[in-house]
Amino acid sequence: MGLQDSIANFQRLFAISLERFFPDNLEPKNLYSASKHLLKSGGKRLRPFLVYQSCKLVGGDIEAVMPAAVSVELIHNFTLIHDDIMDEDEFRRGVPTVHVLWGVPMAILAGDVLFSKAFEIFFHCFSFKHIDRERIVESMRRLANTVTVIAEGQALDMSLEGKIFDMSITELDYLNMIYKKTAILIKTACEIGALLGMGSLESVNVLSKYGENIGLAFQMRDDILGVIGDEKVLGKPVGSDIREGKCTLVLLHAARNCDDNQRKKLQKCYGKRDLSNVELNEIIDVLKETGSLEYVSSLAEKYVLSAKEVLKSFFEGEDRDILMELADYILARGY
Amino acid sequence: MGLQDSIANFQRLFAISLERFFPDNLEPKNLYSASKHLLKSGGKRLRPFLVYQSCKLVGGDIEAVMPAAVSVELIHNFTLIHDDIMDEDEFRRGVPTVHVLWGVPMAILAGDVLFSKAFEIFFHCFSFKHIDRERIVESMRRLANTVTVIAEGQALDMSLEGKIFDMSITELDYLNMIYKKTAILIKTACEIGALLGMGSLESVNVLSKYGENIGLAFQMRDDILGVIGDEKVLGKPVGSDIREGKCTLVLLHAARNCDDNQRKKLQKCYGKRDLSNVELNEIIDVLKETGSLEYVSSLAEKYVLSAKEVLKSFFEGEDRDILMELADYILARGY
Repeated sequence: MGLQDSIANFQRLFAISLERFFPDNLEPKNLYSASKHLLKSGGKRLRPFLVYQSCKLVGGDIEAVMPAAVSVELIHNFTLIHDDIMDEDEFRRGVPTVHVLWGVPMAILAGDVLFSKAFEIFFHCFSFKHIDRERIVESMRRLANTVTVIAEGQALDMSLEGKIFDMSITELDYLNMIYKKTAILIKTACEIGALLGMGSLESVNVLSKYGENIGLAFQMRDDILGVIGDEKVLGKPVGSDIREGKCTLVLLHAARNCDDNQRKKLQKCYGKRDLSNVELNEIIDVLKETGSLEYVSSLAEKYVLSAKEVLKSFFEGEDRDILMELADYILARGY
Repeated sequence: MGLQDSIANFQRLFAISLERFFPDNLEPKNLYSASKHLLKSGGKRLRPFLVYQSCKLVGGDIEAVMPAAVSVELIHNFTLIHDDIMDEDEFRRGVPTVHVLWGVPMAILAGDVLFSKAFEIFFHCFSFKHIDRERIVESMRRLANTVTVIAEGQALDMSLEGKIFDMSITELDYLNMIYKKTAILIKTACEIGALLGMGSLESVNVLSKYGENIGLAFQMRDDILGVIGDEKVLGKPVGSDIREGKCTLVLLHAARNCDDNQRKKLQKCYGKRDLSNVELNEIIDVLKETGSLEYVSSLAEKYVLSAKEVLKSFFEGEDRDILMELADYILARGY
């Protein structure tokens, strides 16, 4: 079974678990409709799939790990709903965002309730008596800490807004920000799968490293797609990073490798909320001329290579192949 | 030692634990300053005190319960920060609210990080080896569920806005809403103290009932103070419930027990954001004439009596006396 079949298979399993642990009939209706809106508008279920597949790779019980997988996806959706409010994004996954449909107050609450539900659901892992209690506790502790780090990452993201021309901001600042904002949840998903799958400490650490590397590559790829992606595949407007003055590595690199003429174009458009398509295309040309898209693309490739390299400490087999394929998919998605 | 000494004593203990588990030097600075703003502007620490005192009453180890006490206060502050955004309240505890000082995006994030930190800190209870692991897990499970219920309560609160003249809304709807919005966290604080204090199941249930009763009385008292309280003691503008069209029992009762003339005054002012002091005083007169303040006051008294009644299943002693006194204090505060 290849990656796509394996993901499709998992998505069915996930849908059943989601309905079981977070049913559709909860009250008050408006609160729970708002909290489920994004969950129901699709998404690949990458993070819960990593919980599941990491558990499978270490030979664990995949049924026992499903509450944790649902929990991780709920945490992800909680952060998306709140991020969309903060960034004033109006579309995601091809549908209007929660605060656009229900207003900011209900969207804040919808995020909060996903967070608390995520933890409530995680406790279902305790009903599987063959899973070490200490490992469940440790998994939950890591997930709670991960949410703290994600909030720190989002704060960094906001504080870096508008700063690509500030020469004191380095690539390391960017890497630290996306590690916190994006990579840590992907990393923690892998750790939780290995922990609850009763994997060795060594295997937990290897999968952690794998998750961190693909997580970093994932965000870089996201930044590239945000500029040159297909709006339909993307599910949101192209160029929003430029409009919102985000500090992506693509833009950071361009600001450090442009000539005067290119800089003028960048400065004119960066952070401009009503950017036209003509202006966007001008910026895309600049990002191509400065080699910035190319640069970030090859950096993402390096992280994917590292991810695949660390995986080699596992024995060859179908489950390892799927994670290898998944690492490559990070770079291929969106085409 | 009486209630006031006991609370003052606890507040010192709490400050030390807070600094230990949630130190001041965390980065990024703006995120953590925002998240600590309300925590530092005072508050009586009622909820963590109840964790502590319930533990003490069942003869538990008060040191082992301090992480949980800090956790409960952080959860409380997280809900306050988000509620203030939703209700557009600009003052609390005599200082501007978090979103007024840092903006809505950072205030959302400050609430989120208090939530995740609360859970992170709770895990410190596991370092006390004499506390039953199952009880710590059960305490955390209840706290996670409590946050879900609080979000549901806030959603109900918002959906009841502007509805005091809707005759299908009953006192029971109000009680259900304040149970979820306010009472459950006070109840859970008591339960957690008894659970971690290794109290009997019976004592956990008794303290749960005590907490629920004082929690309901607390919100009723809050609703009364919101109308006739002293602005300086209150720390926020008087009459905001009327301005925001909240569905408090005081207003609900008045709408059901007023004559035509009184109804006209109520309808004119209810939900009016720019209510003048003259108008506010007119409404206060109506609430006095209809006996609504009196009605809610005596209902709150009944709940306090019930709280004290259930406590009698504990042996007499200083620790029980303090909780008895605390129940009475719920009605006396704000004068």
